[in-house]
Amino acid sequence: MSFETVSQSRCFGGTQFVYRHTSQETGTAMRLAAYVPPQAAGGKVPVVWFLSGLTCTEENFTVKAGAQRMASELGLILIAPDTSPRGEGVPDDPESAYDFGLGAGFYVDATQEPWAKNYRMRSYIERELPALIAENLPADMERQGITGHSMGGHGALTIALRNPGRFKAVSAFAPIASPMNCPWGEKALSHYIGADRSQWHEYDACALIESGARVPDILVDQGLADSFLENQLKPQLLEEACAKAGQPLTLRRQEGYDHSYFFIATFIEDHLRWHAERLA
Amino acid sequence: MSFETVSQSRCFGGTQFVYRHTSQETGTAMRLAAYVPPQAAGGKVPVVWFLSGLTCTEENFTVKAGAQRMASELGLILIAPDTSPRGEGVPDDPESAYDFGLGAGFYVDATQEPWAKNYRMRSYIERELPALIAENLPADMERQGITGHSMGGHGALTIALRNPGRFKAVSAFAPIASPMNCPWGEKALSHYIGADRSQWHEYDACALIESGARVPDILVDQGLADSFLENQLKPQLLEEACAKAGQPLTLRRQEGYDHSYFFIATFIEDHLRWHAERLA
Repeated sequence: MSFETVSQSRCFGGTQFVYRHTSQETGTAMRLAAYVPPQAAGGKVPVVWFLSGLTCTEENFTVKAGAQRMASELGLILIAPDTSPRGEGVPDDPESAYDFGLGAGFYVDATQEPWAKNYRMRSYIERELPALIAENLPADMERQGITGHSMGGHGALTIALRNPGRFKAVSAFAPIASPMNCPWGEKALSHYIGADRSQWHEYDACALIESGARVPDILVDQGLADSFLENQLKPQLLEEACAKAGQPLTLRRQEGYDHSYFFIATFIEDHLRWHAERLA
Repeated sequence: MSFETVSQSRCFGGTQFVYRHTSQETGTAMRLAAYVPPQAAGGKVPVVWFLSGLTCTEENFTVKAGAQRMASELGLILIAPDTSPRGEGVPDDPESAYDFGLGAGFYVDATQEPWAKNYRMRSYIERELPALIAENLPADMERQGITGHSMGGHGALTIALRNPGRFKAVSAFAPIASPMNCPWGEKALSHYIGADRSQWHEYDACALIESGARVPDILVDQGLADSFLENQLKPQLLEEACAKAGQPLTLRRQEGYDHSYFFIATFIEDHLRWHAERLA
């Protein structure tokens, strides 16, 4: 299956695409943004995934992070998927809250009704979309990195931990460190996966690390003026799990930075350099 | 009068502010974005104005251009005003078109009803806002540069040309080169200023240059895949006016680039370096 091009713009010598395609997993039309750097004219280049946070679409990272500049310099394809299925018939949070349902797929395969049919973001990101990218873009799928923000940081960490060897570089911006231990995560997992908390482990980076899952190393940036730091993000849980398990982690606490894209824009260069070094 | 802080975020070691204040000129509450770089902790720093295009608020440039990175490196305050008065009682285009009224102030002082009361963006940008910035920010008002995009490129060029000596650096991204000679400009000026075209000259960069107005030099970037290039922007008119008048102009035609912020983000570094060199 090929991507339908929604838009394309020249950007830093490469091209910023927005694509649309029909997803078998979600049963909906899905959009994604893909930046293809100038180096791709000469052959396949590495891929870095950016998974976005609550309320986001493929657009937020693409227009706000300023990541294309470094992707152009370093020769990286950037993939920014949407954060949930959307469209007619896709159920949303009954109260239309921002933290569940549309824009809040949490990168899980839901098992509970009415979510199970469409909310299959885990399989979409882990299986369906990589195959489409390999088919449609000049992407070297042997050299993939993954990062993300907040809910998407959780997604990046858990997807990398569950797929050992696939991602040679892993990082996150202000990730939800342990969805099993915060209100956002408990709401999402209880609805999507159900009341049996033993089924939540595969969607919790800390639990996965405790169970022996490993990636080569992890870079995390966390702003200390982030209003979600104490109640939702809890980086100390990731720090403790990594320390106990011997999982290498570089956790940088950034004084004064909040949860916004101004924080991401400030540190995206460091993250893309981290990825490029490991994907060289 | 002081600014009310709507939001502030740490960004590249400085602070991105959004402010609100009551404008005497427009009779409305106005918002602006101001990036204050880390160098301002040590004393006043130069100021670069960015005037935005049709439909924009203070937000577009602030979140999409990635300009804070270079402003932080070069030690520049960035000011991004709104593009029109807004709020209850402010008249809009009768058909709510995007190219007139709200989001489309064209940086003029309207003389025609019902626009004359609120649409005073020329005096707001030329007189009221500079005084407020000097009062509220660590800004060296002897070192100002101005740039803008599309309608805001027109604004930057005409404001600089009408205020000789004030701006030591002048540039524009895909400016409307001659509002007297394109549909956007003719619609705006006929409504805001009236049918007498002799009154339009002061709002037309080419006419101002023909009448003897000068700035030290001008940098313009224009994308060649810009869908507004031929009918609205017409950079060749600026090129001809500058050549005839001996006004220095560096006009760069950029293959493949469109009218979006992906174009601005690609070339903002060049523009801010151009400004910083002239504001040193």
